[in-house]
Amino acid sequence: MAETSAYQGKATMEKITSLAKRRGFVFQSSEIYGGQGGAWDYGPLGVELKNRIAANWWKEMTQLQDNIVGLDAAILMHPRTWEASGHVENFTDPLVDCKKCQTRFRSDQIPEENLAGKKCPECGGELTDTRKFNLMFKTNIGALEDEANIVYLRPETAQGIYVNYKNIIQSNRMKIPFGIAQIGKAFRNEIVTKNFIFRTCEFEQMEMQFFVKPGTDEEWFNQWRERRWGYYEKLGVRTDRLRWHRHGPGELAHYAKDAYDIEYLFPMGWKELEGVHNRSDYDLSRHGEYSGKDLTYIDQENNNRRYTPYIIETSAGLTRTLLMLLCDAYDEEKVADKGAEEKEEKEEKEEKGEKGGKDDDWRTVLRFHPAVAPVTVAVLPLMKKDGLPDIAQEIRQELKEYFPTDYDHSGAIGRRYRRQDEVGTPFCVTVDYESKENRTVTLRFRDSMEQVRVGMADLAARIREEIRAYTRAPFGQPAAVSRASCSDRICDLSHNPE
Amino acid sequence: MAETSAYQGKATMEKITSLAKRRGFVFQSSEIYGGQGGAWDYGPLGVELKNRIAANWWKEMTQLQDNIVGLDAAILMHPRTWEASGHVENFTDPLVDCKKCQTRFRSDQIPEENLAGKKCPECGGELTDTRKFNLMFKTNIGALEDEANIVYLRPETAQGIYVNYKNIIQSNRMKIPFGIAQIGKAFRNEIVTKNFIFRTCEFEQMEMQFFVKPGTDEEWFNQWRERRWGYYEKLGVRTDRLRWHRHGPGELAHYAKDAYDIEYLFPMGWKELEGVHNRSDYDLSRHGEYSGKDLTYIDQENNNRRYTPYIIETSAGLTRTLLMLLCDAYDEEKVADKGAEEKEEKEEKEEKGEKGGKDDDWRTVLRFHPAVAPVTVAVLPLMKKDGLPDIAQEIRQELKEYFPTDYDHSGAIGRRYRRQDEVGTPFCVTVDYESKENRTVTLRFRDSMEQVRVGMADLAARIREEIRAYTRAPFGQPAAVSRASCSDRICDLSHNPE
Repeated sequence: MAETSAYQGKATMEKITSLAKRRGFVFQSSEIYGGQGGAWDYGPLGVELKNRIAANWWKEMTQLQDNIVGLDAAILMHPRTWEASGHVENFTDPLVDCKKCQTRFRSDQIPEENLAGKKCPECGGELTDTRKFNLMFKTNIGALEDEANIVYLRPETAQGIYVNYKNIIQSNRMKIPFGIAQIGKAFRNEIVTKNFIFRTCEFEQMEMQFFVKPGTDEEWFNQWRERRWGYYEKLGVRTDRLRWHRHGPGELAHYAKDAYDIEYLFPMGWKELEGVHNRSDYDLSRHGEYSGKDLTYIDQENNNRRYTPYIIETSAGLTRTLLMLLCDAYDEEKVADKGAEEKEEKEEKEEKGEKGGKDDDWRTVLRFHPAVAPVTVAVLPLMKKDGLPDIAQEIRQELKEYFPTDYDHSGAIGRRYRRQDEVGTPFCVTVDYESKENRTVTLRFRDSMEQVRVGMADLAARIREEIRAYTRAPFGQPAAVSRASCSDRICDLSHNPE
Repeated sequence: MAETSAYQGKATMEKITSLAKRRGFVFQSSEIYGGQGGAWDYGPLGVELKNRIAANWWKEMTQLQDNIVGLDAAILMHPRTWEASGHVENFTDPLVDCKKCQTRFRSDQIPEENLAGKKCPECGGELTDTRKFNLMFKTNIGALEDEANIVYLRPETAQGIYVNYKNIIQSNRMKIPFGIAQIGKAFRNEIVTKNFIFRTCEFEQMEMQFFVKPGTDEEWFNQWRERRWGYYEKLGVRTDRLRWHRHGPGELAHYAKDAYDIEYLFPMGWKELEGVHNRSDYDLSRHGEYSGKDLTYIDQENNNRRYTPYIIETSAGLTRTLLMLLCDAYDEEKVADKGAEEKEEKEEKEEKGEKGGKDDDWRTVLRFHPAVAPVTVAVLPLMKKDGLPDIAQEIRQELKEYFPTDYDHSGAIGRRYRRQDEVGTPFCVTVDYESKENRTVTLRFRDSMEQVRVGMADLAARIREEIRAYTRAPFGQPAAVSRASCSDRICDLSHNPE
């Protein structure tokens, strides 16, 4: 897998995959049975990261919007849905078989001379004609296994929104322009799954369909392009790894009037992260036609004129966004001056009667935005004795009411910081001997490795403030804590190594 | 559907279903195509309610627990999983067909004399022998449709936890006792789906599997029974509608050493809400056997002794909990004294030049706990003019950063309160003429219909405080706001009708 230059020899898919497995972000599905291809399981840190990405997107796209509501439609939909959408007919890959060795190929993925000469690239045997293979998973509902009982696992979440559009207008008194947002699983029987969780058979989408009056669609399209780009900026994603790709005439889907993808520079190259599409009135027209229901909109503010709304779609992959954030957050850094961490570690080792030794000079750090980091804060008693764990537990019990909170008392403090850095915990709270005297603790920042002394009573408020003020520093530079934001009352920088 | 006496002629499944559809909680799946049996779509309010139940459970079961982590396993698992679990062999319903009219029956649901005489209850034709019908949905993965490519849609989420147990111990350094929690979809090809969203083909589970040392299992079993009961109490569920049902020897599943269900008194009678089961070492033993992997636990604190952990399971339905909360929260109440609401309405109608009219004297109210209510607060400008909407919008923009916030300016204020009552919004903020003078608003409480005057600057903090202090009054009584909890500074009760 070729690395691109922007990765500067750091993140590779191998490193990301290995870290994800080792630290409990992503496991191979059913690994003890040799794995289930095309499916992945999200471990303790992975599910927290995924939940937080979803919650963040949901808040941005529903709660903070005045005219967007949510929906959660079923995976099993009426099969007519997929006739109307065009999936039964068109959602296919072209396949050929070798008559001799029985190997199956996607005909767009074998050399053209083999296809032209109907010659198997594996054994030289004769190939069949190309046939269309539909990517929808089929199952049977009810006790009979016949055509009448076939249902599909939805290959996309969007159609669930279109078929509910009228119900939502009626029950929630929506007026155009308005949007419907949805997060949910979709399934595609991909013959070739690859790049870890990038392309899988089971995945999650975060979609918003925005219904507008025809003629205003281009304006809304531009507005949503801007807003969705801004979303990634707000999450602190490296903008030098984001770009727009406009669909050319050959790429444009049959339903689309215009389409742009936001692409991200993954270690394996530029790949689609999110699509912003002007779907015209195609979807509602088709469902109107296939269902026989009137899906036009009655414009009450305009003499009850009827029209079929245009739809602007913003469609992102949740699991793909998770992979993007792992790649984007991943950093390896030479630790020039470990300052206070070394000092503490030395102190701790002296207590233990060990010799002070050096960690290696590199650290791996996931620079997640605190809004999505799987663990917000880790509480670490410097020593496992002298009452420090009691104080640490007291802090943990308070903080966990507000934040996903970890607790770790095993190993040298420097090693514990490295463990938290590696999973992207933005804040560490260290309880030391001074804590016993004056009920203050050390608050350590993941990105800058800076430490400040904070009163225990102010800890939750201070962390909340730091999350609010967080901005990720440009890549390659540390920092990221907006120190100007903290009131002097709770900032005592005397313990700061700088 | 017979109503039980505890419902006092109030909630019926018909009323719940109708309200759910009318106000956008739950729609029939693919309704425009005549509906997809066994599947339901969650509308704007339904998805918020469902998300909030899930988030509440997740926080209770992971973040607030010191030894429970989360997981999100794939729906498509390796098929060996279901051989090991016993589902391929045993997860069946007994079916018979009529040879004459081809109708299919569950043989445990037709009269015994028909079964004994092999006589069709519909047409009198001859019945086939009873055969087992497996409830797992099957599909094919990859391009070949043969036995080798069959995968199942998981019929329960639990197995995803068992197959990942070793990975999680390793990646997250878990020590027994510990738990793994998961929320996710499961699918069962139920021949008879009924009672709205109570029994469906596609549903969601909230499960926690707790791994313990053999011999400590009974103690942990009792502890988890207590904790799970306490969970419903904390949510304010009517405890007179909850009871324990212990599985008798005939009911006990093959894997279970002991099993209790928490049952809820739905309008159609007592039904299972959650199971707390002592599953013994069955699951890990079976997966160890079928996978050939060593799934024993190494007890490092006990001379590295190895044992197969026992599992205590707490298994609740998310979508079923949603139905329970709709039933539990549903109330119809005679409004004895509409006090301030009438006064405001009269004022408003006089402004509009309308005659004051009476709403009917009953209101429907969903008494949701604010932690799960789909909308926390609604902002209502008393009039659509004189700058009141501007102030209301200003408040809305602030509140929506913290709470799911609705805004409604259409119709008489009393009708707007009823609309919010009917969907369970715990707080309404009304902007009136006084607001312009002194930047105070009316905060109205759903349960008691009380109103207090609050400064705009204190609003978010006050609502947060009310949520924390919320306790649902015993059924049939109003109140529920803990007024003692508010500091005098922000409580001006002068506007209160009582």
